Amino acid sequence: MENFIFQNQTKIIFGKDEEHRVGKEASLYGKKLLLHYGGGSIKKSGLYDNVIKSLKEQNIEIIELGGVQPNPRVSLVREGVKLCKQHNIDSILAVGGGSVIDSAKAIAIGAHYDGDVWDFFEGKTQVTDCLPLGVVLTIPAAGSETSGGTVITNEEGSYKRAVGHGNMRPAFAILNPVLSYTLPSYQTACGVTDMMSHILERYFTNDKNVELTDRLCEATLKTIINNAHTVINEPTDYAARSEIMWAGTIAHNDSLNTGRTGDWASHDIEHEVSGIYDIAHGAGLAIIFPAWMKYVYKHDINRFVQYANRVWDVEIDLNDLEKTALAGIKKTEEFFHSIGMPITLNEVDIDVEYFAEMAEKATERGPLGNFVKLKKDDVLAIYHLAK
Amino acid sequence: MENFIFQNQTKIIFGKDEEHRVGKEASLYGKKLLLHYGGGSIKKSGLYDNVIKSLKEQNIEIIELGGVQPNPRVSLVREGVKLCKQHNIDSILAVGGGSVIDSAKAIAIGAHYDGDVWDFFEGKTQVTDCLPLGVVLTIPAAGSETSGGTVITNEEGSYKRAVGHGNMRPAFAILNPVLSYTLPSYQTACGVTDMMSHILERYFTNDKNVELTDRLCEATLKTIINNAHTVINEPTDYAARSEIMWAGTIAHNDSLNTGRTGDWASHDIEHEVSGIYDIAHGAGLAIIFPAWMKYVYKHDINRFVQYANRVWDVEIDLNDLEKTALAGIKKTEEFFHSIGMPITLNEVDIDVEYFAEMAEKATERGPLGNFVKLKKDDVLAIYHLAK
Repeated sequence: MENFIFQNQTKIIFGKDEEHRVGKEASLYGKKLLLHYGGGSIKKSGLYDNVIKSLKEQNIEIIELGGVQPNPRVSLVREGVKLCKQHNIDSILAVGGGSVIDSAKAIAIGAHYDGDVWDFFEGKTQVTDCLPLGVVLTIPAAGSETSGGTVITNEEGSYKRAVGHGNMRPAFAILNPVLSYTLPSYQTACGVTDMMSHILERYFTNDKNVELTDRLCEATLKTIINNAHTVINEPTDYAARSEIMWAGTIAHNDSLNTGRTGDWASHDIEHEVSGIYDIAHGAGLAIIFPAWMKYVYKHDINRFVQYANRVWDVEIDLNDLEKTALAGIKKTEEFFHSIGMPITLNEVDIDVEYFAEMAEKATERGPLGNFVKLKKDDVLAIYHLAK
Repeated sequence: MENFIFQNQTKIIFGKDEEHRVGKEASLYGKKLLLHYGGGSIKKSGLYDNVIKSLKEQNIEIIELGGVQPNPRVSLVREGVKLCKQHNIDSILAVGGGSVIDSAKAIAIGAHYDGDVWDFFEGKTQVTDCLPLGVVLTIPAAGSETSGGTVITNEEGSYKRAVGHGNMRPAFAILNPVLSYTLPSYQTACGVTDMMSHILERYFTNDKNVELTDRLCEATLKTIINNAHTVINEPTDYAARSEIMWAGTIAHNDSLNTGRTGDWASHDIEHEVSGIYDIAHGAGLAIIFPAWMKYVYKHDINRFVQYANRVWDVEIDLNDLEKTALAGIKKTEEFFHSIGMPITLNEVDIDVEYFAEMAEKATERGPLGNFVKLKKDDVLAIYHLAK
């Protein structure tokens, strides 16, 4: 186990009807708020009206900025930053899923910075100050509701880049599983894949003696797997929606990677997929993660055997550990397929002719991953395994 | 799953040598600090000198109050409160285990209160303001390093009472597993029992659809069980000491009881044991918990079967679930015995003649527990099962 620092101060308010508290919580952070959201779904569902009502009851002045798209764009972030400066905004409220929250986080760091907000994503400046951020979550997936990270796409050049800092963790996050009832099943499945991949990135580590976090990862994965088909087939099952929503937060609140270094190559390899082709991040992960596993499992067969056995209940064949490891990878792939995810690049119309450029771009800032360090040719091979 | 609010803001700094950061962390909370600790062990080990050095490097003025005993006394808390008021203290640093931290928490709430600090423990007043508190942990057991609770004994009348409030969670906690190397094996075993019991109290719930937290509880229990004999037999095994220390924090940081109501009767029943007879809290729990299990398991056999199967690897006998449930309880008792804990009241010289008075006292503020509500006669029966 490595030395570590862990702090996650986000206040979680979880359960039915809790969105009605949003005004009270938001009022702790000032009287002028930027309300940030995506498209029309929160208006159709009535959530928008409930949020406005709750904010107005606390006499909070609201400046609105909707229009966040999946793979949120820096252009909208820049608009948000401008609004914050212009109206002297006290805090931001993100109502939506990971894209909305990530966009809000980027606005929150840009609001106190004189230069262009993309500087943070190019490493030209560091996060220090940040507007306080509240969240009403509608899509359990990204874990952005308590994480200190944001991923933004720069549409000029199709770059997808991440910034992380503890100060970006939201001050509060309201999680009502009922708000996820109306998610289409494809998006629900993308969310399931995304949260599973957050755990898998942490699980595949070279650190030894990490038993507790291994087991916590396995516990969370098993819970997600056990509830995934229910939330897809019975979208208004409160119990299953609750397990998935809370698991999505736990998966990415950094408690599961205390004392261990995760891998994160698959996320980087996937970013070139969804950054360019605008497919859902979760769908991209369903394609990339099993391919990554096939490419690296020999690096630590025992870890893949443990994964197969503890997460997928594959019996350990002591005479053929490799077979056991591969069975776990197969189960992963089959599971993603069973929830309606694509598992090849071909299925999402990404042709081999683009692989070289994608591999080039993914590795232009250096090798990817920690479990195994991957260079351009390795990434290319993984795209081929995923074709 | 019930609605819940979860927030645990404590900054954890975990690993080898991290105690040298204490001055820097403490300096964030002011320049006048009450240093609170127990007996001579931190002086013998050199920890005291390291802490003083680190604090002085930050020019922090130190007022000292040592002498905290196991089952910390309100009389010393009152002394601490007096010192805080007299010297206008900015923050408190607790160096030690749960008793020292609990004592420091009580001082922290008393410092801003005009009346007697025991008022909090009698429910005559509520926690609002609280001095910031830092911790250097030496005994993994109580989980007090990130919890919002404190348990104090009033020696006039042998009352042991708890107070809980989120504001009492320490601002930071330094956890270096090496600092637990010198713990005698009996105290190590008491710690193991204490942290296991914190999870068991949460595990036995009447809430349905709590799969994720069930699995997280089981993961943490299994890790503690797997590492317990190592920390007792090889006290300087860093890997095992790390697992146990981090598990002790996770067990009681309130993440494992999100969305569920725990029981806590065993703690209340035990408090009458260690409150009066001054045996270690962990030892008392090793005696009381299996007896409590034997008394209540029929209330929800399936939950006890799940416990037996998932935590103790007892195969489920579908034709005799009761047998499976009882096997899990037996494994629990055998485990506590195997790490050197007493498992009967007789072993710690508590005679049946005192049972009635203990049961009376334990229930004088109403029935105990949530899984099953226990009245005086139930508690008496549990003492008899533990005799």
